[in-house]
Amino acid sequence: MSDQVLHSISHRRYNPLTGSWLLVSPHRTTRPWLGQQEASSKNELPEYDPKCYLCPGNQRAQGDSNPQYKNIFTFVNDYSALNEEQQDYTPEASKNDIASLLLQAEPATGRCYVITFSPKHDLTLADMATADIVPVIQAWTRIYASHLSPSHKLYAQAAQALAAIPASPDGEVAPPTKGQLRYMQIFENKGAAMGCSNPHPHCQVWTTSAMPDEPRKELAQMAQYRRDHGGRHLLDDYARLEMEKQERVVWQNAGFLVVCPWWAVWPFEVLVIAKRHVRALVDLTDAERVQFAEAVQEVTRRYDNLFETSFPYSSGIHQAPLDCAEEEAETSWFHMHFYPPLLRSATVRKFLVGYELMAEPQRDITPEQAAAKLRNCGGELYRKTPN
Amino acid sequence: MSDQVLHSISHRRYNPLTGSWLLVSPHRTTRPWLGQQEASSKNELPEYDPKCYLCPGNQRAQGDSNPQYKNIFTFVNDYSALNEEQQDYTPEASKNDIASLLLQAEPATGRCYVITFSPKHDLTLADMATADIVPVIQAWTRIYASHLSPSHKLYAQAAQALAAIPASPDGEVAPPTKGQLRYMQIFENKGAAMGCSNPHPHCQVWTTSAMPDEPRKELAQMAQYRRDHGGRHLLDDYARLEMEKQERVVWQNAGFLVVCPWWAVWPFEVLVIAKRHVRALVDLTDAERVQFAEAVQEVTRRYDNLFETSFPYSSGIHQAPLDCAEEEAETSWFHMHFYPPLLRSATVRKFLVGYELMAEPQRDITPEQAAAKLRNCGGELYRKTPN
Ligand SMILES: [Zn+2]
Ligand SMILES: [Zn+2]
Repeated sequence: MSDQVLHSISHRRYNPLTGSWLLVSPHRTTRPWLGQQEASSKNELPEYDPKCYLCPGNQRAQGDSNPQYKNIFTFVNDYSALNEEQQDYTPEASKNDIASLLLQAEPATGRCYVITFSPKHDLTLADMATADIVPVIQAWTRIYASHLSPSHKLYAQAAQALAAIPASPDGEVAPPTKGQLRYMQIFENKGAAMGCSNPHPHCQVWTTSAMPDEPRKELAQMAQYRRDHGGRHLLDDYARLEMEKQERVVWQNAGFLVVCPWWAVWPFEVLVIAKRHVRALVDLTDAERVQFAEAVQEVTRRYDNLFETSFPYSSGIHQAPLDCAEEEAETSWFHMHFYPPLLRSATVRKFLVGYELMAEPQRDITPEQAAAKLRNCGGELYRKTPN
Repeated sequence: MSDQVLHSISHRRYNPLTGSWLLVSPHRTTRPWLGQQEASSKNELPEYDPKCYLCPGNQRAQGDSNPQYKNIFTFVNDYSALNEEQQDYTPEASKNDIASLLLQAEPATGRCYVITFSPKHDLTLADMATADIVPVIQAWTRIYASHLSPSHKLYAQAAQALAAIPASPDGEVAPPTKGQLRYMQIFENKGAAMGCSNPHPHCQVWTTSAMPDEPRKELAQMAQYRRDHGGRHLLDDYARLEMEKQERVVWQNAGFLVVCPWWAVWPFEVLVIAKRHVRALVDLTDAERVQFAEAVQEVTRRYDNLFETSFPYSSGIHQAPLDCAEEEAETSWFHMHFYPPLLRSATVRKFLVGYELMAEPQRDITPEQAAAKLRNCGGELYRKTPN
């Protein structure tokens, strides 16, 4: 294909999901590295760490103690970035509209949760079998379902999911009783390189009264695409195109496609896309939850195998907002991003700095080269999983 | 003022310069820190390092040797992210327009330069006197002027600047002879925390055939503001507003205002704004170049004083593109961003991860609190400058 030349020349690629551009410099992968190296992380953690605030039975920073949980444990973050109740804010009645335009603020409320994936301190998703990841996805589904607006297009699906999926035997947290929240962001930070302060396997769930910027941009782009293409979905068309082209596909099963997207910023960035029109977690069937767990397992295990290290990343799910009009729910297309910072070994990381902050993101190896590497490191996890 | 409540409640702020939002969580500054700590960097560097590829007389990676330069030395980056000449790229004649829409690429050419600020390996801008920073600004002005399109609205100013400002006695690099470049990004990465591989004081200058995303977004927002407000400039109005409000002002002189902007993402992010309509470096008078050098000196010295460490940051100048219509040149308003990652000591850094990558940027201390701290750490540099 004529695209072959893109593996040797500098070029820019367009991200239709956010409307932004990226600079790709594949000729540059030979440059020497003189900068910071990360320590290669070996798994020498204990199964239980008495100082970990996530391990069963331990006390947390604000005094609460974790139960002796056996599966998955959810609690409200002791240091939430958002408060549920707070003083009102009304912008100063402005002498001129310039101030109200240039110094815009709006109050934001919400609640932040932490969900542990396992009572074992020394596991990661890569160490866990698909069957052990399914309960994580069930917990995500239940917490999403329980926060959905009663007027939501997917409310019936949510009620069904809550009836069909058993609650975690270790208990759950009831959603806030007043004030419908607008959006739920489920995300995981893994590894010190991602600023994660605790190796105990867990994710965070932030719910907010406002629609955050990234999913807002994506939904706007997806809505525009639907308008321009007779109701077709951007990620549906994109997934079909990638399945046809093959070169950026890492792995797939009946329900999910794993690709290094055309517009990937991070060296081994991965996008997990639902193959049919799944709008949110509550749309997944029992079989699809297993397929999604497989996809998460494949991505995280391949990441660890790539450089034979516990691979750091931030991951997150984008899906239908908790509170939105029917149109926005229909426009949503379930997907999960993985943004890992490692560049070409366990110890060389990529920084988003300088030109990338001032001008635009830049990468050296192409997404096609990254996908080929990730395709080739399937199989067993390189290290022995603790048991 | 009623804005006082913003120092205790979670809220979102709008960045009118890019059209994006930010989550502010001031109540969260008390949370404990368990994650990665950066080593505090002490200046124990030699004045000359035989292994540094930027020191005078040393050989660089691709074989060239640096001259025994005494002032400022400019050369073409040995590992440029962009090539000046490369194979053509013509997208595959697509079977369907979906592929050409979802797999968009365009060739990008350009040239990347490195400019050293001093022959001394152990200096930083914070160590340098204003009088020693003026030649850096002169070098920036000359390289910008020499790359400007002959059809540019500022071409006369560029010719005048090249005639008035002496070339560096250590020589200069002639601009490419064919192909007008669209944009020049001058930026500095300082410190290992910003992935900078060499402490020798230097910046980079990337010139590209395409308009990068960040300045493109800013110019679009500034153009919209002018259309909506009878030709007034966003950054003019903003600077006046901040001078009136005072609470986010760090420092100012006759020519430049230094603020922690209302919408700052990084804990101690700073914006240096020209007080009059300076469109690009070539608009600066002799006196303004000195004033700008003072501003750069004040920011970098205050940064180092803040935590008594060599403060890491990425900084960059936004100004008129090298090649643009008169309208775009007139819309441009000279400013410089400083994005530093340190949070509340020399060893605690902020990571842009998780929620910030998936949803939207988030900060704990407010820009007003940051500005107060930076106002209070003027005066002499905390450490003795090598001489
Ligand atoms: Zn997304
Ligand atoms: Zn700017």
